[in-house]
Amino acid sequence: MSTRLPDPDNPLHTEKSHVKRGPGRASYEHEQLLDIVDASLLCTVAQSIDGQPYVTPTCHWRDGDYLYWHGHAKARNLAPGQPVCINIMQMDGLVLARSAFHHSVNYRSATLFGTAEAVTEPEEKARQLHIFLDKISPDRWDDLRPMTDNELKATSLSRILISEASCKIRAEGVNDEAEDADWPVWAGVMPVEKRWGEPIQEEQQDGLSVPRVPLRAK
Amino acid sequence: MSTRLPDPDNPLHTEKSHVKRGPGRASYEHEQLLDIVDASLLCTVAQSIDGQPYVTPTCHWRDGDYLYWHGHAKARNLAPGQPVCINIMQMDGLVLARSAFHHSVNYRSATLFGTAEAVTEPEEKARQLHIFLDKISPDRWDDLRPMTDNELKATSLSRILISEASCKIRAEGVNDEAEDADWPVWAGVMPVEKRWGEPIQEEQQDGLSVPRVPLRAK
Repeated sequence: MSTRLPDPDNPLHTEKSHVKRGPGRASYEHEQLLDIVDASLLCTVAQSIDGQPYVTPTCHWRDGDYLYWHGHAKARNLAPGQPVCINIMQMDGLVLARSAFHHSVNYRSATLFGTAEAVTEPEEKARQLHIFLDKISPDRWDDLRPMTDNELKATSLSRILISEASCKIRAEGVNDEAEDADWPVWAGVMPVEKRWGEPIQEEQQDGLSVPRVPLRAK
Repeated sequence: MSTRLPDPDNPLHTEKSHVKRGPGRASYEHEQLLDIVDASLLCTVAQSIDGQPYVTPTCHWRDGDYLYWHGHAKARNLAPGQPVCINIMQMDGLVLARSAFHHSVNYRSATLFGTAEAVTEPEEKARQLHIFLDKISPDRWDDLRPMTDNELKATSLSRILISEASCKIRAEGVNDEAEDADWPVWAGVMPVEKRWGEPIQEEQQDGLSVPRVPLRAK
């Protein structure tokens, strides 16, 4: 791999976002990145404070070219003005090879770099929280008890521009050495399936419709 | 919360590992921490390079008081001698409240701090990879084509001592405001279930037993 960086044909691909190990599984395609971002509810936000890394899991959502997350107004991981690195990962299966060395996992992973920016304008904050809720449960917002000014004030939002990022994906069978093909051990992929369980409704509710949730459990 | 830190009764609980937001959901109990560590196959490793955070998802395993991960000998996230922060997270459900503000997720999260240490002695490396494989598929190791010296050399291991860490857990129903109890919208928890799918066996294999995998899909 001797890609010159930054790659003018692939603006997401920079020195920082370049995947060093396993470049054959790397991608810097915009649509593929957004697919991975949108397919997960949770990300991990990493930041550095005096050289000490911190990583915090949180929910994320996307609006156009920005990735958003929220927290209490005093939460550490909002990180306004700080460089952050955000990873979003889905594990899709165990890859059970004939040698220990070729065991692996199937996965979709996206890693994004940016500087966290606070979103403070109240109407824009409310609009973003509506987009977030639509991701969790489409069309639920209008049925909820409306948000109060104090609730809006207690919720802080951060975002990064999606401008520097990579994907890494493994979605295939076993890659054993050719000479191991006849080794007498079961080899293949054990898929991980995620699904929604039975909804657990609060007590004393009658005649209300179960809300919509995303098609796939995340 | 006016816990004095470090807490002599709770050595995992330090200034660094102290959970600042939502302390009521935090725990520093050793057994609870190990349960969360052991229940997941994947973690994210965060490190800081010249003030820039990087975060990488990878598989982990545990042997006693140490958490291990592996990578190609040149992988960035092995981070020998560097401070790392590692998060392990399971999402267990969506919490759908009557107000947007009280929407939440049920989860189990563990965050560990330490300095990455390389494991280089070949016999100990092989012993650790055996423990790792036993986590993925119990009792499979002896059936595999034995590991070669070159494979062992190409695999690097890192570990941290589990000495400074926190858990954060939400495992309950909706926490709406009392005055919203009669708001006419479905409220409750939508559990996320993970399970193993149908094994996808490699072609041209007959009479081989499907391997054991952990009881729960991770």
